[in-house]
Amino acid sequence: MEYALNKTAFRKRTYEVLEIASTGDKLSRVVDVGLIALILLSVIAIILESVQSIDDLFHAYFFWFEVTSVAIFTIEYLLRIWSCVESVDNKKSNVSNFKKRSRYCLSFAAIIDLLAILPFYFMMFGLFGNADMRFLRAFRLLRIFKLTRYSASFDILTTVFKENLRAFAAAFFILLVVMLLAASGMYYFEHESQPGKFSSIVASMWWAFSTLTTVGYGDVTPITAGGKAFGALITVVGVGMVALPTGILASAFSEQLRLRNNKYENMADKAYEDGILTTNEKAELESLREELGITKVVAEQILANEKEKQHSPKLCLLSNCPRCGYELSGHHKVTDVPQIKAV
Amino acid sequence: MEYALNKTAFRKRTYEVLEIASTGDKLSRVVDVGLIALILLSVIAIILESVQSIDDLFHAYFFWFEVTSVAIFTIEYLLRIWSCVESVDNKKSNVSNFKKRSRYCLSFAAIIDLLAILPFYFMMFGLFGNADMRFLRAFRLLRIFKLTRYSASFDILTTVFKENLRAFAAAFFILLVVMLLAASGMYYFEHESQPGKFSSIVASMWWAFSTLTTVGYGDVTPITAGGKAFGALITVVGVGMVALPTGILASAFSEQLRLRNNKYENMADKAYEDGILTTNEKAELESLREELGITKVVAEQILANEKEKQHSPKLCLLSNCPRCGYELSGHHKVTDVPQIKAV
Amino acid sequence: MEYALNKTAFRKRTYEVLEIASTGDKLSRVVDVGLIALILLSVIAIILESVQSIDDLFHAYFFWFEVTSVAIFTIEYLLRIWSCVESVDNKKSNVSNFKKRSRYCLSFAAIIDLLAILPFYFMMFGLFGNADMRFLRAFRLLRIFKLTRYSASFDILTTVFKENLRAFAAAFFILLVVMLLAASGMYYFEHESQPGKFSSIVASMWWAFSTLTTVGYGDVTPITAGGKAFGALITVVGVGMVALPTGILASAFSEQLRLRNNKYENMADKAYEDGILTTNEKAELESLREELGITKVVAEQILANEKEKQHSPKLCLLSNCPRCGYELSGHHKVTDVPQIKAV
Amino acid sequence: MEYALNKTAFRKRTYEVLEIASTGDKLSRVVDVGLIALILLSVIAIILESVQSIDDLFHAYFFWFEVTSVAIFTIEYLLRIWSCVESVDNKKSNVSNFKKRSRYCLSFAAIIDLLAILPFYFMMFGLFGNADMRFLRAFRLLRIFKLTRYSASFDILTTVFKENLRAFAAAFFILLVVMLLAASGMYYFEHESQPGKFSSIVASMWWAFSTLTTVGYGDVTPITAGGKAFGALITVVGVGMVALPTGILASAFSEQLRLRNNKYENMADKAYEDGILTTNEKAELESLREELGITKVVAEQILANEKEKQHSPKLCLLSNCPRCGYELSGHHKVTDVPQIKAV
Repeated sequence: MEYALNKTAFRKRTYEVLEIASTGDKLSRVVDVGLIALILLSVIAIILESVQSIDDLFHAYFFWFEVTSVAIFTIEYLLRIWSCVESVDNKKSNVSNFKKRSRYCLSFAAIIDLLAILPFYFMMFGLFGNADMRFLRAFRLLRIFKLTRYSASFDILTTVFKENLRAFAAAFFILLVVMLLAASGMYYFEHESQPGKFSSIVASMWWAFSTLTTVGYGDVTPITAGGKAFGALITVVGVGMVALPTGILASAFSEQLRLRNNKYENMADKAYEDGILTTNEKAELESLREELGITKVVAEQILANEKEKQHSPKLCLLSNCPRCGYELSGHHKVTDVPQIKAV
Repeated sequence: MEYALNKTAFRKRTYEVLEIASTGDKLSRVVDVGLIALILLSVIAIILESVQSIDDLFHAYFFWFEVTSVAIFTIEYLLRIWSCVESVDNKKSNVSNFKKRSRYCLSFAAIIDLLAILPFYFMMFGLFGNADMRFLRAFRLLRIFKLTRYSASFDILTTVFKENLRAFAAAFFILLVVMLLAASGMYYFEHESQPGKFSSIVASMWWAFSTLTTVGYGDVTPITAGGKAFGALITVVGVGMVALPTGILASAFSEQLRLRNNKYENMADKAYEDGILTTNEKAELESLREELGITKVVAEQILANEKEKQHSPKLCLLSNCPRCGYELSGHHKVTDVPQIKAV
Repeated sequence: MEYALNKTAFRKRTYEVLEIASTGDKLSRVVDVGLIALILLSVIAIILESVQSIDDLFHAYFFWFEVTSVAIFTIEYLLRIWSCVESVDNKKSNVSNFKKRSRYCLSFAAIIDLLAILPFYFMMFGLFGNADMRFLRAFRLLRIFKLTRYSASFDILTTVFKENLRAFAAAFFILLVVMLLAASGMYYFEHESQPGKFSSIVASMWWAFSTLTTVGYGDVTPITAGGKAFGALITVVGVGMVALPTGILASAFSEQLRLRNNKYENMADKAYEDGILTTNEKAELESLREELGITKVVAEQILANEKEKQHSPKLCLLSNCPRCGYELSGHHKVTDVPQIKAV
Repeated sequence: MEYALNKTAFRKRTYEVLEIASTGDKLSRVVDVGLIALILLSVIAIILESVQSIDDLFHAYFFWFEVTSVAIFTIEYLLRIWSCVESVDNKKSNVSNFKKRSRYCLSFAAIIDLLAILPFYFMMFGLFGNADMRFLRAFRLLRIFKLTRYSASFDILTTVFKENLRAFAAAFFILLVVMLLAASGMYYFEHESQPGKFSSIVASMWWAFSTLTTVGYGDVTPITAGGKAFGALITVVGVGMVALPTGILASAFSEQLRLRNNKYENMADKAYEDGILTTNEKAELESLREELGITKVVAEQILANEKEKQHSPKLCLLSNCPRCGYELSGHHKVTDVPQIKAV
């Protein structure tokens, strides 16, 4: 590699390799697959480690595997910070590399990368007492989020979520209010007959949550007539609490599909404009189809519909002023329209 | 403030301050935030108060905090009644102020405000025996509804709910009927083997509700073969009972989105009429977008679609010939089309 | 009532009275309300009757109330059979009255009416042993379905259900297949460790149903590692089983709304054709709106959208043959189109 | 049957008979119904066989029924392989019959057919120890999938599922990640107070699954304050986990309906082009309606809407002048519009 000496070129290459592989880039793909595998393995290791019997047997292995994986993740992290300046949008902006890097460090992806390794170092240097040790271990599992970088299918879900944030917030607030009333109501119904389970409104919340989410563990249930009547009412309300986010999500997805297909329909419309579909247009449509993630079946249906439309009659257009013959249609292509001259 | 002496002006100002702050009105915003904080704090206080151990420690604090908060809520309530005559729609109507105020007192918001303070006074003057005391405490929690006044995101949810009230009512009635049949059916299956848990149809309802809402506490379950077979059937029916409101909600939300976007599409359509998008039109579209709560992403997609449409062949869109000013199609109605004579 | 003697007129009147009241028909309304009240009361009576303590106190009252209500229902039933020949569609057909009546007797409504009274007579004349007695009592509750005759809001739900019957059937079949595999799978996992709870595939079905419907009583749960792993998988599948009918219902409702609004939009489109909305058209739209059960808010939005559309330009039409000037447009109203003569 | 000697003709006939009956083919229908009945019966037999008490009584019967049914399924399987070469698409391709057959053997249907009989033979020849015996029995139940061959209503569901595979995969991955975090979180909260139930992260997964799917068995629940708080949060997240697939499914179904109806609308549009609906067009529409599985009610609504549209002013739809036969617009493309010259 003659560019090994050329710093920027090398940095650029590093960036490419670390980013999701562009088709044909063997090395980059290998690195991606390797990192994904490592993430999954280390997560599995953390899980198995929590099984006493397994831990007893392979404690050393787990430890050294953790050390190596953290080492690799650390190198990855540092390389990413170093090479981030090569990203497309960073290229444009002309702020100092330090600024670019510090900005990257505050990005979601970078923070996840940091959280994936930090707990280990804390544990090494025992910055905290044993008490916190366990939480640090739990934190290590957050490295599974490193996978989000490689999965594109999250995008639509996150989009849908972001776009309906306010609706979800409202639904969640309603849930909290209803939960509060349910908990306090049940508290006042059951407190005396079950002072242990419904010792306070706070304690009753456990029941309220498990009921309003229709989980219904059954470890805490009303026993008084009033409590059961109130509880029955709450179970019904719970159905509504579940229906709310579901309804919002369902409509949000429909919306996404509708807009996506509209996009494709318009493109098809345009392609069919002149009645025929050139190979060129076909290719364009295909690429758009894949870009939008529309399945072949749906796409065919849409095209069929468009074709249908073609058989309905086109209009004859008035493209010139009947009196002075001035070309009216401006930039719209209506060249095939007959010339109409005024008397 | 020279208008301090001027009664109506002062009353008007009071009204403004109590209402949701219009942008720039510092004092009003401060009051809003203050009241919201107070509502939340007093609710939290009521919850913590129910925890015996905490109550023992801070009983006095809780009491005095309650006193002050109720005092403030009372003042707020009175001021609202006094200043309600300044509301926009009250301004128009020319009924007596007394009428206006009594009408306001019967509004949902006013009743909530009253319920937020009334229990305290009842408890103070011990109008009821201790037995009711606990219920009065529960009532105090209703003051959380005072928040609804400040949250706009409820509107869409309430709209959706109102518009499908009949459908929800039908779904609820169906639930009741099915619940009744399930309860009585299970009663006749399990009564003999579990006389304690299924002592009567009324008692069986507890099982019916927890099953049909898919909560399934499991504190009451059939044990006979017949009961289990019937119960299994009911669990399946229960899925339907949950699907019904969810389906209604989902379609209702979709409907809302569809209408909302149609509105935006039409506006965009109109804006694109002449092929170009003026800064003025852009501004209008943006304001509409925010008004409708459409996210930027969706809006862009809609606009993109509209732009696409522009490329399909267009008809003469001008009402007058740019050169000779000849009236081409007036208000675009067919009747306005110029007469064209042949030789 | 001079027509008291006139048989057919009297029968016609009876029919009107028993049917849902047409606006203004006082007597009919009274009868409707009375019957609805009686149905509800008798249902409540049956429920309370099942509570031993209450039954002990008021046994006699329950009995006599049952006697009278059954008597009234019987009279109602007979009158309905007698007067059914007056129904609109029976009027047309010229088959014998006997045929009409027997046909009516086989209608859903008539069978429900019969089921509402039959159990009582069976119990009176003790046609069955005591064993069946309890089931007969249960049957009496079916009279709640008599209410369906009076509730219009069921229609949309029933429509939706009918129109997606095949989809629901498929979903139900899938549920059965999955349930079967879940049950047998769990049987082979847990049979040995819990021979009591998972004694056979049939027994395991109880667990399978409560899990796949996400009810999850918890009275029967796997304890082996394999069983728990398999069970966890089934819980996830269960979510799908719940999602299926919900999804079908949601899309079905959306569909209904879409078609309904299309109907209204077309009407509005037509009304706006000439740019203005006459009071006459407004009235038509309003009646349609109520008929379709569209809420004012939605209707306004639709109308607003339509109005928007009006501002996009109309086309100039070619209504005559350019060569011979023959009127081409046939029955379509294009009278305002300019005459175009050929050279 | 004079073709009894003619091999290919006989093979063709065999293929027809085994395939789903074409209307009028009596023998084929009989065979279909017979096989379906046999599948259901043998499944029921396997289920009942697992009930000890029943098995004790009828063991021999179960055995011989199994033998005969497997024999029939084996013959069916062999005949299908032999006759598969007669399938429509196999007819076209000119590869060797062996290739065709081996290809068929790898098809989903063929594999299911094999799985339906294989376990029996394994058990006969005791290829495995008793330990596996039970699993072999379980496998026999897979023969229920043989039914899928006869049920058309699966298609839409499978289509919907396939088309949203990526979305479902994303949802499932999210579920796994959340489940993992929930399990490990709860492990660290409850491990010390309930070392038995939350012995490890793996063990905690059982709780995580039953909570995130809102099944909520209640056999394992948190008891510490922290655990309950965390658990409450997870129950709420669980609602989202359930809402996700439901939302995806709902929108997918809506999509299917929309495309399907579009298809029908376009067809209707075309049919209504000339203002009238010929019996021929009616027949076409009806056949399409059935093919698409649109219900009569919906179809009528669509047609009504289309009819409405007809009343909006129309353009010249004829391609030739009825009087002078002058070519007006050929294939209705703008280019075909006659030249009109002015003086």
